[in-house]
Amino acid sequence: MSDYRPPLDDIRLVLDEISDISATCDLPGFEHVDLETIDGVLEELGRFVAEVVAPVNRIGDEQGCSVTDGVVTVPDEFSVAWDKFVESGWGAISQDPDFGGGGFPGTIQTVVTELLATASRAWSMGPMLTVGAVEAIRSFADEGLKETFLPKMVTSQWSGTMNLTEPQAGSDVGALITRAVPQDDGTYRIFGTKIFITFGEHELTENIIQLVLARTPDSPPGTRGISLFIVPKYLVADDGSLGERNDYRCVSVEHKLGLHASPTCVLAFGDAGDGAVGYLLGGEHQGMRCMFSMMNNARLGVGIEGLAVTERALQQASDYAMERLQGRAIGGPAGEQTAIIRHADVRRMLLTMRAYTDAMRCLLYLNAASLDVADRHPDADTRQRAADRAELLTPISKAWCTDLGVEMTSVGVQVHGGYGYIEETGAAQHLRDARISPIYEGTNGIQAMDLVGRKLPMSEGAVIGDLLVDIAGTVSDLASAGEDFDSIRVGLADALAATEEATTWLMVHGLADPNDAMAGASPYLRMCGQLIGGWLVARLALGAHRRIRAGEGDADFLESKIVVARFYAEQLLPVTRAQLGAVTAGAGDLYAVADDAFSA
Amino acid sequence: MSDYRPPLDDIRLVLDEISDISATCDLPGFEHVDLETIDGVLEELGRFVAEVVAPVNRIGDEQGCSVTDGVVTVPDEFSVAWDKFVESGWGAISQDPDFGGGGFPGTIQTVVTELLATASRAWSMGPMLTVGAVEAIRSFADEGLKETFLPKMVTSQWSGTMNLTEPQAGSDVGALITRAVPQDDGTYRIFGTKIFITFGEHELTENIIQLVLARTPDSPPGTRGISLFIVPKYLVADDGSLGERNDYRCVSVEHKLGLHASPTCVLAFGDAGDGAVGYLLGGEHQGMRCMFSMMNNARLGVGIEGLAVTERALQQASDYAMERLQGRAIGGPAGEQTAIIRHADVRRMLLTMRAYTDAMRCLLYLNAASLDVADRHPDADTRQRAADRAELLTPISKAWCTDLGVEMTSVGVQVHGGYGYIEETGAAQHLRDARISPIYEGTNGIQAMDLVGRKLPMSEGAVIGDLLVDIAGTVSDLASAGEDFDSIRVGLADALAATEEATTWLMVHGLADPNDAMAGASPYLRMCGQLIGGWLVARLALGAHRRIRAGEGDADFLESKIVVARFYAEQLLPVTRAQLGAVTAGAGDLYAVADDAFSA
Repeated sequence: MSDYRPPLDDIRLVLDEISDISATCDLPGFEHVDLETIDGVLEELGRFVAEVVAPVNRIGDEQGCSVTDGVVTVPDEFSVAWDKFVESGWGAISQDPDFGGGGFPGTIQTVVTELLATASRAWSMGPMLTVGAVEAIRSFADEGLKETFLPKMVTSQWSGTMNLTEPQAGSDVGALITRAVPQDDGTYRIFGTKIFITFGEHELTENIIQLVLARTPDSPPGTRGISLFIVPKYLVADDGSLGERNDYRCVSVEHKLGLHASPTCVLAFGDAGDGAVGYLLGGEHQGMRCMFSMMNNARLGVGIEGLAVTERALQQASDYAMERLQGRAIGGPAGEQTAIIRHADVRRMLLTMRAYTDAMRCLLYLNAASLDVADRHPDADTRQRAADRAELLTPISKAWCTDLGVEMTSVGVQVHGGYGYIEETGAAQHLRDARISPIYEGTNGIQAMDLVGRKLPMSEGAVIGDLLVDIAGTVSDLASAGEDFDSIRVGLADALAATEEATTWLMVHGLADPNDAMAGASPYLRMCGQLIGGWLVARLALGAHRRIRAGEGDADFLESKIVVARFYAEQLLPVTRAQLGAVTAGAGDLYAVADDAFSA
Repeated sequence: MSDYRPPLDDIRLVLDEISDISATCDLPGFEHVDLETIDGVLEELGRFVAEVVAPVNRIGDEQGCSVTDGVVTVPDEFSVAWDKFVESGWGAISQDPDFGGGGFPGTIQTVVTELLATASRAWSMGPMLTVGAVEAIRSFADEGLKETFLPKMVTSQWSGTMNLTEPQAGSDVGALITRAVPQDDGTYRIFGTKIFITFGEHELTENIIQLVLARTPDSPPGTRGISLFIVPKYLVADDGSLGERNDYRCVSVEHKLGLHASPTCVLAFGDAGDGAVGYLLGGEHQGMRCMFSMMNNARLGVGIEGLAVTERALQQASDYAMERLQGRAIGGPAGEQTAIIRHADVRRMLLTMRAYTDAMRCLLYLNAASLDVADRHPDADTRQRAADRAELLTPISKAWCTDLGVEMTSVGVQVHGGYGYIEETGAAQHLRDARISPIYEGTNGIQAMDLVGRKLPMSEGAVIGDLLVDIAGTVSDLASAGEDFDSIRVGLADALAATEEATTWLMVHGLADPNDAMAGASPYLRMCGQLIGGWLVARLALGAHRRIRAGEGDADFLESKIVVARFYAEQLLPVTRAQLGAVTAGAGDLYAVADDAFSA
């Protein structure tokens, strides 16, 4: 398991061909970043995650975490890796240089997130949430709060969290009841119970900066009355020294299917004293606005988890399949067992994992690059188009990739046969770790409703329309790329036509009866993901083809990208059209069964 | 979780409409069985599993099992349930009356297996393996061995196992090296190590009857040289009393993803003494013949597991969805949270689980009925046709249902949102328990190769041809059933056409290059399962329609079967055609990537 290999060649190819990373480096603010710097960063980062983070993955799963008297214990190895992480500075790479960050593009942060999550899904939750918390404070805090909290959070010396969920308020965040009582000094006192708080308590860092959603007195109901607060574990004096412990505590950690060493905490605020001291971020009732502004990055980050578990599971499964001897493959030498990787069915499983890994990476990096352009491009129209593209892609990145993460890690178990079911093998851990990602940060059903209900109607359909036009452009490019690309072109054109039909249906019927559109939302999201994945691996193949003709790069590696695109187009892409019936069926049959008649 | 409800209405409807259970009751040997008896049996059995077995399910998962000095401990509750099971006589219901069995049809055994597995997957492994072991002994042992072992195994006072796997011999059973040394008294001494032995050791029963595959001296290599032995835990004296402990022991139990309380044992035979005493079954070198004769029942039994976990997960998910308030459904009252079952996306998940539950049950009961007819029908041609049909359906029952079991239990987790990831909820257990079934009793890849390599060529394609003709017959029936059935007819006809095309391709190309056919085997099996499932729920809907018109039965329940068939045809059946590209792509691309190039 510690023989994890950072997939740097794949990452570089997708950065070049799909994200156009050199164009990103030309954006204002990234003058200090060029391809050579990035190459060096990837080498160093790859070494770091392989040597420091990857080895803690199994240990974390086996040892898990626990809480005693409010003190949360995680494996010692997690602590060692965290200290090295702080020391190495990887947590700061894409952060604001004004607070000690490296100022790299978000696209490179995406690579960091991927590599950390591939190395250890559980461990990487801490750094990932810290990046999100930094972003919230940087965007919405006043200068004093920024000076107090950001420098040590940027380096990951202090970690950050998000406190949204309460027992009655999960997907329905507007139902939260945690209270924030204003004080004369401008601070607030927080009272309430938050659940499912990832890395909500631990001893890995000197301080933990909780971001907490709560209601101020006399707030309007629902999401409009929610405010966001900074609630540090230890209060911070003006000189930056740590003061007294704030009035909240961890009352339990959850016993979960996976991510055993990522402490998922129940935090009780203000139940033991005068309330936890909180500092308002972004003004009263601005909590949801703050949340929304971080949502794209957070959802992209969760989408990356689907890629990460699949990459890790694929590495392990292909290693096993090369070593494990069993049966005799067709054409294999008589009387000898063959490595199972020679069996067609095992190769099908591995190539499916490979193809989806490439497709997910392409989608996620394209999404990340769109966010960079939206953030930095000097031209307002270009920024807007990129922002719109990112808005459209984000729910697809989150949901499609995390659904695939579950499906592909399950395939990884299957490759291992009976040994896959034994925990010591480690294959099952990937499946267990993968299973949360379709749930949190907006369930995949909510992503689908966001796609259909909010994103399709953007600019009266022009945003999805532009994407479909781009895909049609690739269909044209494929026509002039030679007969090797014929089946890719045919497959992509058919999937595109089906998606166009589904899109039109949803736009029309969504106006007449929103529930008809909502009923088709999940299959439509699958459709979009499957199509975009096929589009992007086709583009990757075209890029590989161009490089091969130019004599650039490793020909075998580049040829394999053409094989992947063809396999995807012929064998995986037909799933797109297969969704059309479900997308266009309407809600009727879903409501034709009584609520209590779905089961015995 | 103990609010498990035996789905008797569904079971009865499928027994009637799909298995033609009354025709089964007319077969020779089943004179004592009629519909009224069966109704009574189902009521009693349903009560038994709900009251006695279902409550042990979570306990088993939480407590698991362990081994100390060769003694395996399972939860006390497992022992109580086992004793009641023996007392109740349910283990004997379909067994040979000559040895104390009830002589019921195998179709009813299928229902028993389903209900036990739905109530507790882990616990039910013991009884299920015992039924298989009884069948082997009944079929192949001489009278003396039958008299010695069967009476107490039929009642489940003694349990039975199957010992096939060794570390180097999993799917490749011919690679096993366990030795059987003949003795002067006609017995054998067994030496070797077996792994993955389900219920291989425990204290639930007075004796455990191991069936062990081993090689006699100078046997031919591979599967041709394998023999089958009875190896009791305690030797049995002529008067039936238990004698000394045999020379084998449990050296470890596996730490598995699921089925925590089902002890999966490593058994060491003969490592401490003169070898374990074994009694030959069916003659030397007949081991694989014995295995093959039990294979259909065993594989059908594993297919049932896919149904069972889905039924249980569906019950739990729909209960949760009716209770959990979150968000406001479209059209719901303002300012109030709605039960999540009112959201279209949640209903889609539940109806998908519902539809596959029905489809799996139909397939499995049809398969079981075919085995009964093959076993008992007075007409030889009818027996042969039924046997052929069962041969064809069995790999589909095993693989399609167990793949769906994993997919649908994962959907069950998703319905629960964040709570689904918390082990105490119990939703994740179903997914963990489900994950082994696509692996053991022949991996699903092996099932697919069996389907394409052995079953398609049967009678030069006439067996699959007959099935496709039957499906075409239902397409015709649907045409005269009114416009409610139009979309079902259209969907089924299209899926049938795609499957016909795939079948022809495989038959032709399988002759030219077997690896091309093997490369398409898994998607072809999925295709067949998806089609047959759609065919059978359509037949169920036609039956429901007929009953409604005749004023028989609960109209709401029967109407729901028409909804399910339409939902399946419009929304799930298109997956059939989506496999066509993968079935007909050949092996080329699978081998175009180098063995070491699937991952970084």
